Amino acid sequence: MKKHIKTLKKKSKNFDPKLKEECGVFGISNAKDASALTALGLHALQHRGQEGCGIVTFDGEKYYSEKRFGLVGDNFNKEEILNKLKGNYAIGHNRYSTTGDNILRNIQPFFADTNAGGIGVAHNGNLTNSISIRNKLVEDGAIFYTTSDTETIVKLIAKSKRPTTIDKIVDAIFQIQGGYALVMLTQTSLIGVRDPLGIRPLVIGKLKNSYVLTSETCALDIIGAKFLREVENGEIVIIEDNELKSIKPFPPKKVRPCVFEYIYFARPDSILNGKSAYEHRKNLGIQLAKENKNFDADVVVPVPDSGNAAAIGYAQFLGKDFELGLTRNHYVGRTFIEPSQKIRSLGVKLKLNANQSIIKDKRILLIDDSLVRGTTSHKIVKMLYDAGAKEVHVKIACPEIRYPDFYGVDTPTKKELLAANKSNEEICSYIGAKSLSFLSINGMYKAIGFDQRNNNYPQLTDHYFTGEYPVKPIDELGDSKITQLSLLSTASNN
Amino acid sequence: MKKHIKTLKKKSKNFDPKLKEECGVFGISNAKDASALTALGLHALQHRGQEGCGIVTFDGEKYYSEKRFGLVGDNFNKEEILNKLKGNYAIGHNRYSTTGDNILRNIQPFFADTNAGGIGVAHNGNLTNSISIRNKLVEDGAIFYTTSDTETIVKLIAKSKRPTTIDKIVDAIFQIQGGYALVMLTQTSLIGVRDPLGIRPLVIGKLKNSYVLTSETCALDIIGAKFLREVENGEIVIIEDNELKSIKPFPPKKVRPCVFEYIYFARPDSILNGKSAYEHRKNLGIQLAKENKNFDADVVVPVPDSGNAAAIGYAQFLGKDFELGLTRNHYVGRTFIEPSQKIRSLGVKLKLNANQSIIKDKRILLIDDSLVRGTTSHKIVKMLYDAGAKEVHVKIACPEIRYPDFYGVDTPTKKELLAANKSNEEICSYIGAKSLSFLSINGMYKAIGFDQRNNNYPQLTDHYFTGEYPVKPIDELGDSKITQLSLLSTASNN
Amino acid sequence: MKKHIKTLKKKSKNFDPKLKEECGVFGISNAKDASALTALGLHALQHRGQEGCGIVTFDGEKYYSEKRFGLVGDNFNKEEILNKLKGNYAIGHNRYSTTGDNILRNIQPFFADTNAGGIGVAHNGNLTNSISIRNKLVEDGAIFYTTSDTETIVKLIAKSKRPTTIDKIVDAIFQIQGGYALVMLTQTSLIGVRDPLGIRPLVIGKLKNSYVLTSETCALDIIGAKFLREVENGEIVIIEDNELKSIKPFPPKKVRPCVFEYIYFARPDSILNGKSAYEHRKNLGIQLAKENKNFDADVVVPVPDSGNAAAIGYAQFLGKDFELGLTRNHYVGRTFIEPSQKIRSLGVKLKLNANQSIIKDKRILLIDDSLVRGTTSHKIVKMLYDAGAKEVHVKIACPEIRYPDFYGVDTPTKKELLAANKSNEEICSYIGAKSLSFLSINGMYKAIGFDQRNNNYPQLTDHYFTGEYPVKPIDELGDSKITQLSLLSTASNN
Amino acid sequence: MKKHIKTLKKKSKNFDPKLKEECGVFGISNAKDASALTALGLHALQHRGQEGCGIVTFDGEKYYSEKRFGLVGDNFNKEEILNKLKGNYAIGHNRYSTTGDNILRNIQPFFADTNAGGIGVAHNGNLTNSISIRNKLVEDGAIFYTTSDTETIVKLIAKSKRPTTIDKIVDAIFQIQGGYALVMLTQTSLIGVRDPLGIRPLVIGKLKNSYVLTSETCALDIIGAKFLREVENGEIVIIEDNELKSIKPFPPKKVRPCVFEYIYFARPDSILNGKSAYEHRKNLGIQLAKENKNFDADVVVPVPDSGNAAAIGYAQFLGKDFELGLTRNHYVGRTFIEPSQKIRSLGVKLKLNANQSIIKDKRILLIDDSLVRGTTSHKIVKMLYDAGAKEVHVKIACPEIRYPDFYGVDTPTKKELLAANKSNEEICSYIGAKSLSFLSINGMYKAIGFDQRNNNYPQLTDHYFTGEYPVKPIDELGDSKITQLSLLSTASNN
Repeated sequence: MKKHIKTLKKKSKNFDPKLKEECGVFGISNAKDASALTALGLHALQHRGQEGCGIVTFDGEKYYSEKRFGLVGDNFNKEEILNKLKGNYAIGHNRYSTTGDNILRNIQPFFADTNAGGIGVAHNGNLTNSISIRNKLVEDGAIFYTTSDTETIVKLIAKSKRPTTIDKIVDAIFQIQGGYALVMLTQTSLIGVRDPLGIRPLVIGKLKNSYVLTSETCALDIIGAKFLREVENGEIVIIEDNELKSIKPFPPKKVRPCVFEYIYFARPDSILNGKSAYEHRKNLGIQLAKENKNFDADVVVPVPDSGNAAAIGYAQFLGKDFELGLTRNHYVGRTFIEPSQKIRSLGVKLKLNANQSIIKDKRILLIDDSLVRGTTSHKIVKMLYDAGAKEVHVKIACPEIRYPDFYGVDTPTKKELLAANKSNEEICSYIGAKSLSFLSINGMYKAIGFDQRNNNYPQLTDHYFTGEYPVKPIDELGDSKITQLSLLSTASNN
Repeated sequence: MKKHIKTLKKKSKNFDPKLKEECGVFGISNAKDASALTALGLHALQHRGQEGCGIVTFDGEKYYSEKRFGLVGDNFNKEEILNKLKGNYAIGHNRYSTTGDNILRNIQPFFADTNAGGIGVAHNGNLTNSISIRNKLVEDGAIFYTTSDTETIVKLIAKSKRPTTIDKIVDAIFQIQGGYALVMLTQTSLIGVRDPLGIRPLVIGKLKNSYVLTSETCALDIIGAKFLREVENGEIVIIEDNELKSIKPFPPKKVRPCVFEYIYFARPDSILNGKSAYEHRKNLGIQLAKENKNFDADVVVPVPDSGNAAAIGYAQFLGKDFELGLTRNHYVGRTFIEPSQKIRSLGVKLKLNANQSIIKDKRILLIDDSLVRGTTSHKIVKMLYDAGAKEVHVKIACPEIRYPDFYGVDTPTKKELLAANKSNEEICSYIGAKSLSFLSINGMYKAIGFDQRNNNYPQLTDHYFTGEYPVKPIDELGDSKITQLSLLSTASNN
Repeated sequence: MKKHIKTLKKKSKNFDPKLKEECGVFGISNAKDASALTALGLHALQHRGQEGCGIVTFDGEKYYSEKRFGLVGDNFNKEEILNKLKGNYAIGHNRYSTTGDNILRNIQPFFADTNAGGIGVAHNGNLTNSISIRNKLVEDGAIFYTTSDTETIVKLIAKSKRPTTIDKIVDAIFQIQGGYALVMLTQTSLIGVRDPLGIRPLVIGKLKNSYVLTSETCALDIIGAKFLREVENGEIVIIEDNELKSIKPFPPKKVRPCVFEYIYFARPDSILNGKSAYEHRKNLGIQLAKENKNFDADVVVPVPDSGNAAAIGYAQFLGKDFELGLTRNHYVGRTFIEPSQKIRSLGVKLKLNANQSIIKDKRILLIDDSLVRGTTSHKIVKMLYDAGAKEVHVKIACPEIRYPDFYGVDTPTKKELLAANKSNEEICSYIGAKSLSFLSINGMYKAIGFDQRNNNYPQLTDHYFTGEYPVKPIDELGDSKITQLSLLSTASNN
Repeated sequence: MKKHIKTLKKKSKNFDPKLKEECGVFGISNAKDASALTALGLHALQHRGQEGCGIVTFDGEKYYSEKRFGLVGDNFNKEEILNKLKGNYAIGHNRYSTTGDNILRNIQPFFADTNAGGIGVAHNGNLTNSISIRNKLVEDGAIFYTTSDTETIVKLIAKSKRPTTIDKIVDAIFQIQGGYALVMLTQTSLIGVRDPLGIRPLVIGKLKNSYVLTSETCALDIIGAKFLREVENGEIVIIEDNELKSIKPFPPKKVRPCVFEYIYFARPDSILNGKSAYEHRKNLGIQLAKENKNFDADVVVPVPDSGNAAAIGYAQFLGKDFELGLTRNHYVGRTFIEPSQKIRSLGVKLKLNANQSIIKDKRILLIDDSLVRGTTSHKIVKMLYDAGAKEVHVKIACPEIRYPDFYGVDTPTKKELLAANKSNEEICSYIGAKSLSFLSINGMYKAIGFDQRNNNYPQLTDHYFTGEYPVKPIDELGDSKITQLSLLSTASNN
């Protein structure tokens, strides 16, 4: 994950205004093809980050590391590179870029030779107090080489005076706050850590004699591993000598996973709290239909692919026709991510196109999973009207997003969150729809499996809608900022 | 397009055994941002070829050419490269690779300085007599630099003794046979040619004062151009001085477009004979349901994305639930196309994963658009049973493919076509399904809009199912082979 | 070699205004490590061309080709690439770039599949009638892919109606004029051709059972091959079945090698007409001293490295001290060849620096091998005065260059040749020297081994000084020009 | 410079067994084109290191850094890259690689954001106690990212509790020992430091209002800067607000520069102690001749280029003919540094070739600057005999090298130093010469300008010959070793 460094301006991201989670992690023990299996796991987690990817392995003697810009399948698909990554233990990481620092050394896993031996760390999430920690370490003579939180964690481990590596790790995580899922590779063990509230996801799988630690169950499926259980919130799992041990150093708390794993991030086939994300999203769509029962339209059209499941649920509940009225061009992985001014100015449809014959003269019920800035919705609604739609009604399968995230999700600032600044009527008018509805917060809880908010746990980390932050965003509140980082290394590989 | 050079062994393609069309073409006249508009058009046609792409422009004085391996969006997305491609006239090409000759000079458009001036040519299709022509030209002292049919066409144009470029082109196309759609850029005009039967597609669009010639209407939509009409079979259209002229040098024939444009190739939102490909495919699904009316199952699941439309049609007609029971990983554009032995041996699900919670304990009706080798179907059926399916019934929304193509579609040999060698029962057993049905040929014609085969035109080029080849595959039948081409230039850019 | 395409502006070459020969060639038969030996030969010939290099091999069945920009040692130094070039027969080429067309396909050897089988051609020299031939071929329907003369030769071979490859080659070389040394690889033989006057050099060597054909003997030395003899002027040597056969299809003429091989091009250790180039140059220096006997100075300083041998001769004859008063920075292979404006504007000494302690307060006798544009001499003289020289006297170890070359040497136009436009006094004043002398033409002939010009052969091709062109420069004299070549392929690898 | 990490095996360097100095440094203040001037300076210092180069600049607000593998002229020759390096202050570094760690992050200048602000450091030399320091820092929680001494220095600066940057630097250099010349760029100043004995060189120049700090005066010449003086041994010079201040924190000692700067490293035109290196070397040659007065031979031939000056001196003193009997191929900058096994096994002469016509039937007096392993000398003597030499007498213009260096010169181990293990007769026989002489130590001192060793300073650091080490090689003597550094990052840019 990447720290929102306050002193560096965020690159504007006009082209995909959805919330973006930062990073996927994977680790495997005791496996003959550890590097290949990790490449496959990262490939299954590719939706969590496409900017870069890396793998660190350990063969009992030495560590091996390869980091690349771009997709896993473009980089870790050759015998040659997989063979370089020797050893039966591996961890890997997919990086989603937030700030403009696209330099190779920012790509994870992060590796360091500490006094306690080598350690590789892959991290998903965001620390809420890393700048404060970092500034203290710098005063003490530390030199930072990256702009990532992960280096902060590794430095805390290296600095710890505790005797064993596990002790040092516990020492370090007691000092950090925020949402985090860590997978680490020491000289004797594979270690997984999930933050005290379980905001970021981490699951355990088993493949023959190997344990797997990873962000989502879809990374278990791809290698044929069995899903054992989630790492619990605040739990440290240590795989050593082929056995899994567990430590729970924190006072027990109820788990509060990030609601956006349910709504958007997790791959549809990943299991969250016993159901696939696809089912959760279908249920959100069904609930949305229930809250809009008397509404009439000709066809239900999803914004593909994130709105598909909810639209199927919605259409099934109402008995309406579900139609793929928008065609998605999937060749936009990294492509056109920074199109030239020439192309941008043509106002084009790089990703979506209306399927006229489905749309023309119809009353369209457009389903999307969420609404953040509204810029894409605006374009899609216009595209549908241009294609001859009679009416376009927008239904959002989650509540209004009014508050930014500080636990590892790349949200825009409050200023840019449409629902934080406009009434529903204003939003509807901004996106140009005939009508607009959001799912209620209670409805969302019902759909995901709880009757009411605040009554019985497990609850979710739902501050996006409520503003209630379960972990104080220290760096955000103070006026702390990183005063270092004066180096602009413009080359891609400095 | 790429000639099936007989002397070069075909690379086995285990990973995507679907039929593959070869190439998309695009040309635009008189447009300020000709290169950027062409890049966008090619991006919309990316599904027609991902191996390489190229653009040739003309600024009234000089030609400019850029060719690249990989996706349009990864290569033609920067101001820098678009600005190099000066001029208001441009043609472009997406290449799908068939043989192993992935060398840059094989990427199109093909350019040549002929006695009649410069000419750029982009070609989709396959000539059935190019080896015969080629051998004759070589005897006469010609030297070939590529293994592509397109060079044969250009050489014929250059050799012609007719006075004008248009005359030379007519001279040349009278000598070639097969399925072809050509877009050419001379020093005075943009030219489009479609083969006498209209096997390969070519459409005309208009954007302000510019004419556009391209493979599919989706490439018009992306730049906001209006769809005027198809180029007719055997028609040459010449855009010169901002006017479109038409020549029809061949004796008139009824059009017979390739049926696989309807079934698989065209993007769902492209218009074929008045309807979107999506609608045609939904109709194929509906017809399939009609032919299997008494059949019962719990859910209808498409093989994504090619089976989506047919499955929606099928489910709607029967009132069954349509579910996305297979999750597709879209980050496999170029990725893992040649995975290492290490990864391949793990027998993995790089592209698809079953969504267990949808599949478990259900009777699944799996819909696919077609069945070629059956290897993927076999894997998918197994994947569904592994995920707990009670029964898996496979329904194919087109007839049995029994004959290979020679007009530009990369089909396996007859030996590898499952339906050419096995009865339906044997196929069903091979893929491991509980039952298997194909659409009837008559049903296919009904769905696409004709009552009966053989009665009233327009008919389709449907030899895949019938073995009736409307153009004689000369090179295939004779024992002609290219004896040249002894150079193995192993470097990527020789 | 590269044709001086008239329609393409020459890139100005401010940085090394010496005459430059175009290209070195190498071929070997029947050798186990043919590709590695060819790489070594080309390395020894690196001084003849640094822009690009290529090797074509033949293993009895297929040809293999690798071409690269840059130095041999940077490109053909790895097992990996050498192993790709299979076979016991190989030819190679070092390219010196004249025009701006630095595209890979212009790099040699040129390969073509002709009706007579594959043929690889490496060429040093320049045809004087290639444009005329080319235009005729284009009228006849030929399409050219490069801007090189070599393609013209290959096209003539392919076009020939004679039955055998050797016959076709003879047919082709009867049509071409100019200076050329060709090394060719057919499917049965290694062939060498030298132009009727022997303007361009070509020698024969032997290494165990292998024959070697190459531009200079230094390429024999590096692989330990024995120097047999020169290919004679107008001779074709054919190495087939391990035997060397010779054909002399032209009417006999006296040989007239290019004088600049003696003066500048050949590596000092290469043998020309029985003596090393080093000795020839020392003799030129001695002769220069004889013609300037009464002249006095403190030290003799060469312009390194091209003036070294003459300066040693000069100093030895006069008994003066020879001193390396100018230090040359040899790390300027390709480096800084196109320095940024920023660096150029600093007026710097990228290549040479005066050694102050040698120069200060001395009367310097500066020896250079030749004077072309005079820009470098001007800078060097200034550098010496800046370093405290009392007097700088410039002695040039060859006559005044007044006429351009058309046989393969990249000379500036007559306009830029200093001695073509200025008297010796004016030149002296332009370069800022205290005095200036050139060697006399008769002196030059004496030094190289002839008593008098015009009396007894062998004479040299000496038009640089006399204006007498032994082969009529047809393309130059007519107004023929290439009207084709309208493609600007800006990418490096198109 | 690069630490001789004990735990990493040294790459064998068969191809250039000369002593190699590690690195050149350059810094400039207050100059408009600071990055371009630094590139030029580094180009002039290219002989001191060819593996990599880097430049760090500061524009008053931010630092900019670019590091590259390869030559300066191949990397820093474009406007584009020079413009990225903004600011009027710059430092640069040429790296000579010793260990196998050719990863970009090991290339200098080293940059760090410390508590005292950003600091860039370029370093030439070697610390004799860096492993001891490093181990202590690691115990304390430090994490090292490179294998270079320079990081140790920077970490000491960052750790220092002193208030100002200068104080921190003084604090740090009090802890380090060895030979070092440092150029640093802080946010307010350009700083130069030379070790207490002045083992490694550092000079001060002035160009208009800019100060320059660099390894040799040739880097001043190339930009037209005036040579002011050497930085004194143990001196710190601080250029701030356009003024040069000096601090001498160490107890005063006599300067003892490394003798190999005189014998081999410095470029011939660089000034050492008032004379050019060329003159010093000529004097070494003259002294060598004096010590071998009665010796007779036909020609004096240098091993080019390092033996040139001594050979000229030798020949002049004896009145013998100096001849370039060995031709050097200068296109071996980086080229063929790691030739393939195929090429190596051919036993070839990549760099030198005998000029037969000079050598044949002559008694050769071969002059070289030094003899280290003897492998090259052996090859050259054989080459001369193969070329027909009657006798080959080898004269070495320095004493016998019997002891390795620990102050920044990459010497082989004692085991590999020929003169450490063999008598002169044995060496002579090993290299195959008729006779062999070395210069005497006293002769060397006389030639360089001192009458006798041990009497009057300035003396030289001459342990190579005497075994007297002026700074104790702590890391070498103890059994300290780096236990960290377990990461093998095989990719070039990790």
